[in-house]
Amino acid sequence: MTMAKRDTYTPDSLLAVAVEVFIERGYDGTSMEHLSKAAGISKSSIYHHVRSKEELLHRAISRALDGLFGVLEEPAALQGRAIERLEHVTRRVTEVLMDELPYVTLLLRVRGNTDTERWAMERRREFDHEVSALLKQAAADGDLRDDVDVRLATRLLFGMINSIVEWYRPGRGGTANRDEVAEAVVRTAFAGLRRP
Amino acid sequence: MTMAKRDTYTPDSLLAVAVEVFIERGYDGTSMEHLSKAAGISKSSIYHHVRSKEELLHRAISRALDGLFGVLEEPAALQGRAIERLEHVTRRVTEVLMDELPYVTLLLRVRGNTDTERWAMERRREFDHEVSALLKQAAADGDLRDDVDVRLATRLLFGMINSIVEWYRPGRGGTANRDEVAEAVVRTAFAGLRRP
Repeated sequence: MTMAKRDTYTPDSLLAVAVEVFIERGYDGTSMEHLSKAAGISKSSIYHHVRSKEELLHRAISRALDGLFGVLEEPAALQGRAIERLEHVTRRVTEVLMDELPYVTLLLRVRGNTDTERWAMERRREFDHEVSALLKQAAADGDLRDDVDVRLATRLLFGMINSIVEWYRPGRGGTANRDEVAEAVVRTAFAGLRRP
Repeated sequence: MTMAKRDTYTPDSLLAVAVEVFIERGYDGTSMEHLSKAAGISKSSIYHHVRSKEELLHRAISRALDGLFGVLEEPAALQGRAIERLEHVTRRVTEVLMDELPYVTLLLRVRGNTDTERWAMERRREFDHEVSALLKQAAADGDLRDDVDVRLATRLLFGMINSIVEWYRPGRGGTANRDEVAEAVVRTAFAGLRRP
Protein backbone atom coordinates (compact mmCIF):
# COMPACT_ATOMS: atom_id res chain seq x y z
CA MET A 1 0.00 0.00 0.00
CA THR A 2 1.27 3.46 -0.87
CA MET A 3 1.47 6.23 1.64
CA ALA A 4 -1.90 7.93 1.93
CA LYS A 5 -1.81 11.57 0.90
CA ARG A 6 -3.38 14.34 2.91
CA ASP A 7 -7.10 14.49 2.20
CA THR A 8 -7.59 17.70 0.25
CA TYR A 9 -10.62 16.46 -1.67
CA THR A 10 -13.76 18.47 -2.15
CA PRO A 11 -17.01 16.56 -2.70
CA ASP A 12 -16.70 17.28 -6.43
CA SER A 13 -13.09 16.24 -6.85
CA LEU A 14 -13.60 13.01 -4.91
CA LEU A 15 -16.67 12.30 -7.04
CA ALA A 16 -14.63 12.79 -10.22
CA VAL A 17 -12.13 10.15 -9.09
CA ALA A 18 -14.90 7.72 -8.08
CA VAL A 19 -16.68 8.07 -11.41
CA GLU A 20 -13.51 7.22 -13.34
CA VAL A 21 -13.11 4.06 -11.25
CA PHE A 22 -16.80 3.12 -11.67
CA ILE A 23 -16.48 3.46 -15.45
CA GLU A 24 -13.24 1.47 -15.58
CA ARG A 25 -14.18 -1.39 -13.24
CA GLY A 26 -17.95 -1.24 -13.42
CA TYR A 27 -19.96 -0.10 -10.39
CA ASP A 28 -20.50 -3.65 -9.09
CA GLY A 29 -16.81 -4.43 -9.50
CA THR A 30 -15.67 -1.39 -7.49
CA SER A 31 -14.96 -1.66 -3.76
CA MET A 32 -14.26 1.10 -1.24
CA GLU A 33 -10.70 -0.28 -1.26
CA HIS A 34 -10.44 0.46 -5.00
CA LEU A 35 -11.74 3.98 -4.43
CA SER A 36 -9.31 4.52 -1.57
CA LYS A 37 -6.37 3.41 -3.75
CA ALA A 38 -7.45 5.52 -6.72
CA ALA A 39 -7.92 8.62 -4.55
CA GLY A 40 -4.75 7.98 -2.56
CA ILE A 41 -6.53 8.54 0.75
CA SER A 42 -7.68 6.11 3.41
CA LYS A 43 -11.09 4.50 3.46
CA SER A 44 -11.95 6.37 6.65
CA SER A 45 -11.14 9.64 4.85
CA ILE A 46 -13.58 8.65 2.12
CA TYR A 47 -16.21 7.88 4.76
CA HIS A 48 -15.64 11.39 6.04
CA HIS A 49 -17.07 12.60 2.71
CA VAL A 50 -19.75 10.00 1.95
CA ARG A 51 -21.61 7.25 3.75
CA SER A 52 -21.34 4.64 1.03
CA LYS A 53 -20.32 3.71 -2.48
CA GLU A 54 -23.96 4.03 -3.47
CA GLU A 55 -24.04 7.64 -2.30
CA LEU A 56 -21.20 8.38 -4.71
CA LEU A 57 -23.15 6.70 -7.50
CA HIS A 58 -26.24 8.70 -6.58
CA ARG A 59 -24.33 11.98 -6.66
CA ALA A 60 -22.73 11.13 -10.00
CA ILE A 61 -26.00 10.10 -11.61
CA SER A 62 -27.72 13.20 -10.18
CA ARG A 63 -25.13 15.40 -11.79
CA ALA A 64 -25.83 13.82 -15.20
CA LEU A 65 -29.60 13.96 -14.74
CA ASP A 66 -29.56 17.55 -13.48
CA GLY A 67 -27.70 18.53 -16.62
CA LEU A 68 -30.10 16.70 -18.91
CA PHE A 69 -33.34 17.75 -17.21
CA GLY A 70 -31.97 21.30 -16.94
CA VAL A 71 -32.07 21.45 -20.74
CA LEU A 72 -35.83 20.91 -20.69
CA GLU A 73 -36.23 24.02 -18.50
CA GLU A 74 -34.30 26.33 -20.80
CA PRO A 75 -36.44 29.05 -22.43
CA ALA A 76 -35.76 27.70 -25.95
CA ALA A 77 -37.03 24.29 -24.83
CA LEU A 78 -40.26 25.79 -23.48
CA GLN A 79 -41.25 28.40 -26.02
CA GLY A 80 -41.93 28.25 -29.72
CA ARG A 81 -42.81 25.54 -32.19
CA ALA A 82 -42.21 21.96 -31.05
CA ILE A 83 -39.79 21.25 -33.90
CA GLU A 84 -37.61 24.21 -32.87
CA ARG A 85 -37.77 23.20 -29.21
CA LEU A 86 -36.83 19.65 -30.24
CA GLU A 87 -33.82 20.84 -32.20
CA HIS A 88 -32.73 22.97 -29.25
CA VAL A 89 -33.09 20.03 -26.87
CA THR A 90 -31.16 17.75 -29.25
CA ARG A 91 -28.28 20.21 -29.51
CA ARG A 92 -28.15 20.94 -25.79
CA VAL A 93 -28.43 17.28 -24.72
CA THR A 94 -25.52 16.50 -27.02
CA GLU A 95 -23.54 19.35 -25.43
CA VAL A 96 -24.38 18.25 -21.88
CA LEU A 97 -23.28 14.71 -22.77
CA MET A 98 -19.89 16.04 -23.87
CA ASP A 99 -19.53 18.57 -21.02
CA GLU A 100 -20.43 15.99 -18.36
CA LEU A 101 -18.94 13.05 -20.25
CA PRO A 102 -17.99 10.69 -17.38
CA TYR A 103 -21.23 11.33 -15.48
CA VAL A 104 -23.44 10.74 -18.51
CA THR A 105 -21.36 7.69 -19.49
CA LEU A 106 -22.03 6.24 -16.05
CA LEU A 107 -25.74 7.05 -16.32
CA LEU A 108 -25.92 5.22 -19.65
CA ARG A 109 -24.21 2.14 -18.23
CA VAL A 110 -26.23 1.52 -15.07
CA ARG A 111 -28.32 -1.59 -15.30
CA GLY A 112 -30.61 -1.65 -12.27
CA ASN A 113 -29.05 -3.78 -9.52
CA THR A 114 -29.50 -1.22 -6.72
CA ASP A 115 -32.19 1.31 -5.75
CA THR A 116 -30.05 4.10 -7.15
CA GLU A 117 -29.63 2.30 -10.46
CA ARG A 118 -33.36 1.59 -10.72
CA TRP A 119 -34.08 5.23 -9.95
CA ALA A 120 -31.58 6.29 -12.63
CA MET A 121 -33.25 4.07 -15.21
CA GLU A 122 -36.67 5.41 -14.27
CA ARG A 123 -35.45 9.00 -14.64
CA ARG A 124 -33.93 8.14 -18.03
CA ARG A 125 -37.28 6.78 -19.16
CA GLU A 126 -38.97 9.99 -17.98
CA PHE A 127 -36.48 12.02 -19.96
CA ASP A 128 -37.00 9.96 -23.11
CA HIS A 129 -40.73 10.35 -22.59
CA GLU A 130 -40.44 14.16 -22.49
CA VAL A 131 -38.46 14.19 -25.72
CA SER A 132 -40.87 11.75 -27.28
CA ALA A 133 -43.74 14.11 -26.39
CA LEU A 134 -41.94 16.92 -28.22
CA LEU A 135 -41.57 14.70 -31.29
CA LYS A 136 -45.26 13.86 -31.09
CA GLN A 137 -46.16 17.55 -30.95
CA ALA A 138 -43.87 18.32 -33.89
CA ALA A 139 -45.61 15.56 -35.84
CA ALA A 140 -49.03 17.01 -34.92
CA ASP A 141 -47.82 20.43 -36.13
CA GLY A 142 -47.00 18.83 -39.49
CA ASP A 143 -43.28 19.57 -39.08
CA LEU A 144 -42.04 15.96 -39.25
CA ARG A 145 -42.03 13.80 -42.33
CA ASP A 146 -45.28 11.82 -42.54
CA ASP A 147 -43.52 8.49 -42.29
CA VAL A 148 -41.79 9.19 -38.95
CA ASP A 149 -42.70 6.72 -36.21
CA VAL A 150 -42.29 8.77 -33.01
CA ARG A 151 -41.22 5.92 -30.72
CA LEU A 152 -38.70 4.56 -33.19
CA ALA A 153 -37.40 8.03 -34.06
CA THR A 154 -36.85 8.79 -30.36
CA ARG A 155 -34.81 5.63 -30.01
CA LEU A 156 -32.71 6.30 -33.10
CA LEU A 157 -32.13 9.91 -32.06
CA PHE A 158 -30.91 8.91 -28.59
CA GLY A 159 -28.96 6.02 -30.12
CA MET A 160 -27.05 8.51 -32.21
CA ILE A 161 -26.52 10.97 -29.36
CA ASN A 162 -25.60 8.40 -26.71
CA SER A 163 -23.07 6.66 -28.98
CA ILE A 164 -20.92 9.79 -28.73
CA VAL A 165 -19.67 8.65 -25.30
CA GLU A 166 -17.88 5.79 -27.10
CA TRP A 167 -15.46 8.04 -28.97
CA TYR A 168 -15.67 11.68 -27.91
CA ARG A 169 -12.73 12.84 -25.76
CA PRO A 170 -12.54 16.57 -25.00
CA GLY A 171 -9.55 18.40 -26.38
CA ARG A 172 -7.99 15.39 -28.05
CA GLY A 173 -6.33 16.41 -31.32
CA GLY A 174 -8.03 15.25 -34.49
CA THR A 175 -11.39 14.84 -32.85
CA ALA A 176 -14.15 17.14 -33.96
CA ASN A 177 -14.79 19.73 -31.30
CA ARG A 178 -17.85 19.99 -29.11
CA ASP A 179 -19.73 22.56 -31.20
CA GLU A 180 -19.05 20.72 -34.47
CA VAL A 181 -20.34 17.47 -32.98
CA ALA A 182 -23.52 19.08 -31.65
CA GLU A 183 -24.14 20.78 -34.99
CA ALA A 184 -23.55 17.52 -36.89
CA VAL A 185 -26.03 15.65 -34.68
CA VAL A 186 -28.74 18.27 -35.19
CA ARG A 187 -28.21 18.42 -38.96
CA THR A 188 -27.98 14.66 -39.43
CA ALA A 189 -31.06 13.96 -37.32
CA PHE A 190 -33.26 16.72 -38.73
CA ALA A 191 -32.02 17.38 -42.25
CA GLY A 192 -30.38 14.03 -43.09
CA LEU A 193 -27.10 13.45 -44.90
CA ARG A 194 -28.46 13.56 -48.43
CA ARG A 195 -28.66 16.82 -50.34
CA PRO A 196 -32.35 17.61 -50.77
CA MET B 1 -24.34 -30.46 -10.81
CA THR B 2 -27.25 -31.45 -13.00
CA MET B 3 -27.25 -34.61 -15.06
CA ALA B 4 -25.50 -33.97 -18.34
CA LYS B 5 -27.75 -34.44 -21.34
CA ARG B 6 -26.71 -36.39 -24.40
CA ASP B 7 -24.59 -34.20 -26.65
CA THR B 8 -26.77 -33.52 -29.67
CA TYR B 9 -25.18 -30.16 -30.45
CA THR B 10 -24.14 -29.09 -33.88
CA PRO B 11 -21.36 -26.51 -34.17
CA ASP B 12 -24.00 -23.83 -34.78
CA SER B 13 -26.31 -24.72 -31.91
CA LEU B 14 -23.42 -24.93 -29.43
CA LEU B 15 -22.18 -21.58 -30.69
CA ALA B 16 -25.62 -20.03 -30.09
CA VAL B 17 -25.54 -21.14 -26.46
CA ALA B 18 -21.98 -19.90 -25.97
CA VAL B 19 -22.78 -16.48 -27.42
CA GLU B 20 -25.69 -16.00 -25.02
CA VAL B 21 -23.38 -16.78 -22.10
CA PHE B 22 -20.64 -14.48 -23.42
CA ILE B 23 -23.16 -11.62 -23.70
CA GLU B 24 -24.60 -12.24 -20.25
CA ARG B 25 -21.35 -12.75 -18.29
CA GLY B 26 -18.90 -10.99 -20.57
CA TYR B 27 -16.29 -13.00 -22.48
CA ASP B 28 -13.61 -12.57 -19.80
CA GLY B 29 -16.06 -13.60 -17.09
CA THR B 30 -17.07 -16.83 -18.86
CA SER B 31 -15.32 -20.12 -18.05
CA MET B 32 -15.61 -23.48 -19.82
CA GLU B 33 -17.48 -24.54 -16.67
CA HIS B 34 -20.12 -21.85 -17.31
CA LEU B 35 -20.45 -22.98 -20.91
CA SER B 36 -20.76 -26.59 -19.85
CA LYS B 37 -23.54 -25.72 -17.39
CA ALA B 38 -25.42 -23.53 -19.88
CA ALA B 39 -25.24 -26.19 -22.59
CA GLY B 40 -26.03 -29.02 -20.18
CA ILE B 41 -23.17 -31.16 -21.48
CA SER B 42 -19.77 -31.99 -19.99
CA LYS B 43 -16.66 -29.94 -20.59
CA SER B 44 -15.10 -32.85 -22.46
CA SER B 45 -18.11 -32.88 -24.79
CA ILE B 46 -17.51 -29.21 -25.49
CA TYR B 47 -13.84 -29.92 -26.20
CA HIS B 48 -15.07 -32.49 -28.71
CA HIS B 49 -16.52 -29.53 -30.68
CA VAL B 50 -13.93 -26.80 -30.07
CA ARG B 51 -10.39 -26.49 -28.78
CA SER B 52 -10.97 -23.44 -26.61
CA LYS B 53 -13.26 -20.69 -25.43
CA GLU B 54 -11.42 -18.36 -27.78
CA GLU B 55 -12.30 -20.57 -30.75
CA LEU B 56 -15.97 -20.10 -29.89
CA LEU B 57 -15.45 -16.34 -29.74
CA HIS B 58 -13.64 -16.44 -33.07
CA ARG B 59 -16.47 -18.35 -34.71
CA ALA B 60 -19.11 -16.05 -33.27
CA ILE B 61 -17.29 -12.90 -34.34
CA SER B 62 -16.65 -14.42 -37.79
CA ARG B 63 -20.34 -15.00 -38.23
CA ALA B 64 -21.09 -11.33 -37.49
CA LEU B 65 -18.26 -10.09 -39.70
CA ASP B 66 -19.16 -12.41 -42.58
CA GLY B 67 -22.69 -11.00 -42.50
CA LEU B 68 -21.49 -7.40 -42.45
CA PHE B 69 -18.73 -7.74 -45.05
CA GLY B 70 -21.09 -9.83 -47.19
CA VAL B 71 -23.25 -6.71 -47.56
CA LEU B 72 -20.36 -4.89 -49.21
CA GLU B 73 -20.21 -7.62 -51.90
CA GLU B 74 -23.88 -7.39 -52.84
CA PRO B 75 -24.53 -6.06 -56.37
CA ALA B 76 -26.39 -3.00 -55.05
CA ALA B 77 -23.36 -2.14 -52.90
CA LEU B 78 -21.01 -2.36 -55.88
CA GLN B 79 -22.92 -0.76 -58.73
CA GLY B 80 -24.48 2.63 -59.16
CA ARG B 81 -24.05 6.04 -57.57
CA ALA B 82 -22.23 6.09 -54.23
CA ILE B 83 -25.24 7.63 -52.42
CA GLU B 84 -27.48 4.76 -53.58
CA ARG B 85 -24.85 2.17 -52.63
CA LEU B 86 -24.50 3.86 -49.25
CA GLU B 87 -28.24 3.72 -48.62
CA HIS B 88 -28.29 0.06 -49.61
CA VAL B 89 -25.38 -0.70 -47.28
CA THR B 90 -27.04 1.21 -44.43
CA ARG B 91 -30.28 -0.71 -44.84
CA ARG B 92 -28.61 -4.11 -45.17
CA VAL B 93 -26.19 -3.57 -42.28
CA THR B 94 -29.18 -2.70 -40.11
CA GLU B 95 -30.92 -5.89 -41.26
CA VAL B 96 -27.84 -8.04 -40.64
CA LEU B 97 -27.54 -6.55 -37.16
CA MET B 98 -31.12 -7.61 -36.38
CA ASP B 99 -30.87 -11.01 -38.13
CA GLU B 100 -27.60 -11.88 -36.38
CA LEU B 101 -28.41 -9.95 -33.21
CA PRO B 102 -26.39 -11.91 -30.60
CA TYR B 103 -23.36 -12.27 -32.86
CA VAL B 104 -23.26 -8.57 -33.77
CA THR B 105 -23.92 -7.63 -30.13
CA LEU B 106 -20.86 -9.65 -29.14
CA LEU B 107 -18.79 -8.06 -31.92
CA LEU B 108 -19.74 -4.58 -30.68
CA ARG B 109 -18.76 -5.42 -27.10
CA VAL B 110 -15.30 -6.92 -27.56
CA ARG B 111 -12.58 -4.69 -26.20
CA GLY B 112 -9.27 -6.17 -27.30
CA ASN B 113 -7.86 -8.37 -24.52
CA THR B 114 -7.09 -11.38 -26.76
CA ASP B 115 -5.78 -11.87 -30.29
CA THR B 116 -9.30 -12.66 -31.45
CA GLU B 117 -10.67 -9.49 -29.91
CA ARG B 118 -7.91 -7.36 -31.42
CA TRP B 119 -8.57 -8.97 -34.80
CA ALA B 120 -12.30 -8.24 -34.39
CA MET B 121 -11.62 -4.58 -33.63
CA GLU B 122 -9.29 -4.32 -36.61
CA ARG B 123 -11.93 -5.83 -38.91
CA ARG B 124 -14.55 -3.40 -37.52
CA ARG B 125 -12.24 -0.50 -38.34
CA GLU B 126 -11.81 -1.86 -41.87
CA PHE B 127 -15.56 -2.06 -42.23
CA ASP B 128 -16.07 1.50 -40.99
CA HIS B 129 -13.35 2.59 -43.39
CA GLU B 130 -15.20 1.02 -46.36
CA VAL B 131 -18.41 2.80 -45.44
CA SER B 132 -16.53 6.03 -44.86
CA ALA B 133 -15.06 5.72 -48.38
CA LEU B 134 -18.59 5.43 -49.78
CA LEU B 135 -19.61 8.58 -47.89
CA LYS B 136 -16.55 10.35 -49.27
CA GLN B 137 -17.47 9.32 -52.81
CA ALA B 138 -21.08 10.44 -52.30
CA ALA B 139 -19.75 13.81 -51.12
CA ALA B 140 -17.48 14.04 -54.19
CA ASP B 141 -20.52 13.30 -56.38
CA GLY B 142 -22.29 16.25 -54.78
CA ASP B 143 -24.97 14.02 -53.25
CA LEU B 144 -24.33 14.89 -49.59
CA ARG B 145 -25.11 18.20 -47.98
CA ASP B 146 -22.08 20.50 -48.20
CA ASP B 147 -21.69 20.70 -44.45
CA VAL B 148 -21.34 16.93 -43.88
CA ASP B 149 -18.07 15.95 -42.20
CA VAL B 150 -17.45 12.42 -43.51
CA ARG B 151 -15.64 11.08 -40.44
CA LEU B 152 -18.19 12.47 -38.02
CA ALA B 153 -21.12 11.37 -40.18
CA THR B 154 -19.75 7.80 -40.32
CA ARG B 155 -19.57 7.75 -36.52
CA LEU B 156 -23.08 9.11 -36.05
CA LEU B 157 -24.50 6.73 -38.66
CA PHE B 158 -22.95 3.69 -36.97
CA GLY B 159 -23.88 5.11 -33.57
CA MET B 160 -27.51 5.10 -34.64
CA ILE B 161 -27.35 1.64 -36.23
CA ASN B 162 -25.35 -0.03 -33.45
CA SER B 163 -27.63 1.33 -30.71
CA ILE B 164 -30.38 -0.94 -32.06
CA VAL B 165 -28.80 -3.91 -30.24
CA GLU B 166 -29.80 -2.21 -26.97
CA TRP B 167 -33.54 -2.52 -27.54
CA TYR B 168 -34.42 -4.62 -30.61
CA ARG B 169 -35.73 -8.09 -29.80
CA PRO B 170 -37.09 -10.13 -32.71
CA GLY B 171 -40.76 -10.94 -32.58
CA ARG B 172 -41.43 -9.19 -29.30
CA GLY B 173 -44.88 -7.58 -29.36
CA GLY B 174 -44.99 -3.81 -29.54
CA THR B 175 -41.54 -3.55 -31.04
CA ALA B 176 -41.27 -2.23 -34.55
CA ASN B 177 -40.49 -5.05 -36.91
CA ARG B 178 -37.25 -5.58 -38.74
CA ASP B 179 -38.25 -3.93 -42.02
CA GLU B 180 -39.76 -0.90 -40.29
CA VAL B 181 -36.59 -0.41 -38.27
CA ALA B 182 -34.33 -0.67 -41.33
CA GLU B 183 -36.53 1.77 -43.24
CA ALA B 184 -36.58 4.21 -40.32
CA VAL B 185 -32.77 4.15 -40.07
CA VAL B 186 -32.33 4.84 -43.77
CA ARG B 187 -34.89 7.66 -43.80
CA THR B 188 -33.65 9.28 -40.60
CA ALA B 189 -30.01 9.15 -41.65
CA PHE B 190 -30.48 10.31 -45.24
CA ALA B 191 -33.65 12.42 -45.27
CA GLY B 192 -33.76 13.56 -41.62
CA LEU B 193 -36.81 13.82 -39.38
CA ARG B 194 -37.90 17.28 -40.43
CA ARG B 195 -40.28 17.80 -43.32
CA PRO B 196 -38.28 19.49 -46.08
